[in-house]
Amino acid sequence: MEVALGQIPPDTMIENGVLVDVATRRLLDGVYIFISDGRVAAIAKEKSKVGPETKIIDASGAYLVPGLVDAHYHIESSRLSPRRHAQITLPYGTTTLFEGSHEICNTLGLDGVRYLLEESEGLPQKIFVGLSSATPPTPYETSSAYIGGKEAEEALKLEGVAGIDEVMDYTALFNGEERLHSVIEAGLTSGKIVEGHGVPSPPQADAFLATGVSSTHFSGDGAKAIALLERGCFLELKPRDSRQAIRELVAAGIDWQMVGMCVDDRPAERISQLGHLDYELRICIEEGLNPVTAIQLATLNNARHWRKEHEVGIVAPGRRADILFIPDLDAFKVDKVMANGEIVAEKGRLTVDIPIRQAPAYVLKTIKLRKPLTAKDFEVRAPAGRSNVKAAVLSPFYFSSDLPPITRELLVEGSLVQRDLSHDVNKVAIVRRDGGGLGVSFWEIGYQHGAVAMSVLHDSHNISVVGATDSDMVRAVNRVAEMGGGIAIVRDGVIKAEVLLPIAGLMTDRPLPEVVAGLDRINEEAAKLVPGKLLGPNPVDTQTFIFLTCYPWGIVLTDGGLINVRNGQPVPAVW
Amino acid sequence: MEVALGQIPPDTMIENGVLVDVATRRLLDGVYIFISDGRVAAIAKEKSKVGPETKIIDASGAYLVPGLVDAHYHIESSRLSPRRHAQITLPYGTTTLFEGSHEICNTLGLDGVRYLLEESEGLPQKIFVGLSSATPPTPYETSSAYIGGKEAEEALKLEGVAGIDEVMDYTALFNGEERLHSVIEAGLTSGKIVEGHGVPSPPQADAFLATGVSSTHFSGDGAKAIALLERGCFLELKPRDSRQAIRELVAAGIDWQMVGMCVDDRPAERISQLGHLDYELRICIEEGLNPVTAIQLATLNNARHWRKEHEVGIVAPGRRADILFIPDLDAFKVDKVMANGEIVAEKGRLTVDIPIRQAPAYVLKTIKLRKPLTAKDFEVRAPAGRSNVKAAVLSPFYFSSDLPPITRELLVEGSLVQRDLSHDVNKVAIVRRDGGGLGVSFWEIGYQHGAVAMSVLHDSHNISVVGATDSDMVRAVNRVAEMGGGIAIVRDGVIKAEVLLPIAGLMTDRPLPEVVAGLDRINEEAAKLVPGKLLGPNPVDTQTFIFLTCYPWGIVLTDGGLINVRNGQPVPAVW
Repeated sequence: MEVALGQIPPDTMIENGVLVDVATRRLLDGVYIFISDGRVAAIAKEKSKVGPETKIIDASGAYLVPGLVDAHYHIESSRLSPRRHAQITLPYGTTTLFEGSHEICNTLGLDGVRYLLEESEGLPQKIFVGLSSATPPTPYETSSAYIGGKEAEEALKLEGVAGIDEVMDYTALFNGEERLHSVIEAGLTSGKIVEGHGVPSPPQADAFLATGVSSTHFSGDGAKAIALLERGCFLELKPRDSRQAIRELVAAGIDWQMVGMCVDDRPAERISQLGHLDYELRICIEEGLNPVTAIQLATLNNARHWRKEHEVGIVAPGRRADILFIPDLDAFKVDKVMANGEIVAEKGRLTVDIPIRQAPAYVLKTIKLRKPLTAKDFEVRAPAGRSNVKAAVLSPFYFSSDLPPITRELLVEGSLVQRDLSHDVNKVAIVRRDGGGLGVSFWEIGYQHGAVAMSVLHDSHNISVVGATDSDMVRAVNRVAEMGGGIAIVRDGVIKAEVLLPIAGLMTDRPLPEVVAGLDRINEEAAKLVPGKLLGPNPVDTQTFIFLTCYPWGIVLTDGGLINVRNGQPVPAVW
Repeated sequence: MEVALGQIPPDTMIENGVLVDVATRRLLDGVYIFISDGRVAAIAKEKSKVGPETKIIDASGAYLVPGLVDAHYHIESSRLSPRRHAQITLPYGTTTLFEGSHEICNTLGLDGVRYLLEESEGLPQKIFVGLSSATPPTPYETSSAYIGGKEAEEALKLEGVAGIDEVMDYTALFNGEERLHSVIEAGLTSGKIVEGHGVPSPPQADAFLATGVSSTHFSGDGAKAIALLERGCFLELKPRDSRQAIRELVAAGIDWQMVGMCVDDRPAERISQLGHLDYELRICIEEGLNPVTAIQLATLNNARHWRKEHEVGIVAPGRRADILFIPDLDAFKVDKVMANGEIVAEKGRLTVDIPIRQAPAYVLKTIKLRKPLTAKDFEVRAPAGRSNVKAAVLSPFYFSSDLPPITRELLVEGSLVQRDLSHDVNKVAIVRRDGGGLGVSFWEIGYQHGAVAMSVLHDSHNISVVGATDSDMVRAVNRVAEMGGGIAIVRDGVIKAEVLLPIAGLMTDRPLPEVVAGLDRINEEAAKLVPGKLLGPNPVDTQTFIFLTCYPWGIVLTDGGLINVRNGQPVPAVW
């Protein structure tokens, strides 16, 4: 205020740029931006207020764009700690993230929120937390924590918690599950936002939204996008998966105020290949959206949806001084990034020190097997006297709505059901990270050797392990537990590759090149185990997502064994 | 949710209308709107879910428009209680009001908020309260209550309190006054909205907005409107005073998402002549704004600004079923009004019973003079031995930025300074309604007879009285006090007209025709006292507004005497 009134000089002044005004969707020339204490003080028409100490930044040739605001993001999916993640995403212009915290909350409960907020202290990148609505993800899984209405009410009192993160368990929602609805109610009562996930087409969309859910991140076509918008749903486009929708929405000439955008999930190595929200913004422009409108989606619209437009999303008095310098709006390559009033990156490189802090004890050693597993833990017993059994074998890629489970015949030796590697049938297990038990089954995934275990398992983040031998499965799981979390590839009793993810069993604060090299090696070694079936170029990443229980699609393996997630009935692995 | 899923039938279904979709700014044909428990359950493509008890409403020939949402309004200015006010404004389609509560809060403190929320219980019109930031309005006035940071924090916990109402005391704001800034801080911390008022042009605009103020209700031209929008200020147009701005904004082709609209103040008799927010909306259409955009301004945009878009502002699942039936969008005359799922008005007439409740004791008898006034109270003493004095006489219409006070010579009789009726100089006083004192001065307003007293006095709502004789002034003030609030016209010791405003001294719950007749009679009788100078056709209404201290314009009369509101210095009435 005092700077705007000319009573004291600004810390910094930016001149000669063209300001992208996301409120009116116009360009603004000939202004001076005064910055004080990390916030914008004034958009001035003259520079008379500058003092001798004022730092002057010449933005000639650049458009000045508000720092990008990601409406829905999971830092955990990068495998990097929040501060390490900020180091690599700030240069792409992401100055604010709305973090969906269910990964870390499923392993640490409200301590996960605490960690995110502590990490973000003093960070130029703002992290607002969407509290997990999915702890546990569904009633069918056991996660290491519980967040119900009471816990939500508590967490929502924190200023850094901006609402409730992606409600996604359709079945529980439509069944009126008490825990989930009480979390939604806490969100609505707090005046904060309740986010959705994968909101279906009408008429289920109406039911979803009628519960108080406000939004969804979106991959789909234009007709569905419009149907959701018409129903008052804020749409967080994932442009890479919504190219057709963008073209159709542009053609329909809609008002875009209820549309935003997000990255959602992106592992570290993909960030360094593609970029971050800037990449999604470029896709919108490629698909015909006016660049200034595209910028609105990635800034003001996201900020308004989350009710943080007084803090971020626009270069205007009182807001954080988060400003991108961009030579060409159509190409949308970020040249320089200001966050909280400081230039933090130039030409893709960080220009400030973002020190990595010692991870606090409460986020470490979160894998709590009571004792090391043995081969006995993975035995599947046949009914007495049988030489073969029928088995419900999981399909290669059963992350889909219409793949039935496969019934296969498997041999029995010494009353134990055997794999059938000749038909690609592996054993698979989910081991509770709190040491409370495990579920075992079969999966037609095709590894001919070894085992792959990991403590990243959406969304419970128990330990999943798949393998061609029980002994390699044992070794892999025990190694993951010893590391306090991570990914391990074992072949013939030997650890071939491993990545430590000691923070909540999900993240590391090691430098990016080391993490990328480690993940590359993991994928290479996994490929050498010959996974035959459909897991694509990145079998390890696929394994992290394939045990989601929130979609009512059929039979899924959980830590309690196979479950039909359409009706909650357990399904025998063999009979 | 259950209705949307087809598990139970809706209470009501609307068919054959054309839905105005304010999210995408399009029209939507061939939909069935399912309503349950006062809220929209689904926007369906077929009517299969209807049950035998479902009430079916045929909307053939009508556009279906979300109920209107007024972004900034003072019920008190209508002189009617909230429930009486709802009876007359619901037929115009106003189903939600964001009520700026500083009138009632200056007389009752937080009990004013309590009264507003109690009155709105069970009312089809939703009243969200913006807590007064102006209690007291400025440090120069004494009002009957105090709302600081602590009181604000308390009130903001209430779900019905949507934020902090119009910050307007420039001087205190820019001087960093502790009370005002702590109220703003409480608003920002609560995650709710901090409203502005009369935000000036840049560079003061920047200073105003830098304090955390989000918005302003707006009368002005297009250039100022755009300057404020560019600075991230949400603009609540008062279209009747912004015709030129509307034309200029239309011509500029702006994005309208940061623009809303409001009525602000309108006395009951003007409501029955003009209408309510529908009238403002018609003005926007007249000035060239697309009708669907104009509807967005008066519905979704206002609701989003106030962070209540999950409740009101759009016909969509989960929201209140507030729906207007409008035969012609361009003419925008409301034919039928649904609020909370019930038809409440048709063709301008209320069709439901909105019972008037007994006003609670805590809002009555709020004028607390310790004893009746006497003529002595209005004496102005001259310095000893003087036969005439110089006096700082208030200008006829000094509600303006550039009118200096007038210096006049006045005669002294028996050491008391006299009026000069031949030069239109009356005596004027502001009497504290808590009995704590009064300020007396002179005003060149021209009444040749009698006196006019009233307990409506923006924004302190002390009692103002102007008169041609001290004895009539005494009688008028004492009568206002006896009534527990209201307006009284006295001539030669006789009460010529009076209106009782017993609720907080500001409002009545009597029927509209009676109130209008009473106010008409007041104005007629006031005219008979011959106010010579510039008070227009409605001198009484003007008197309510003319003692505002929040604009830094010059010398104003307060309950403590004349004050220079530019610097807070007292000014002697005579010397």
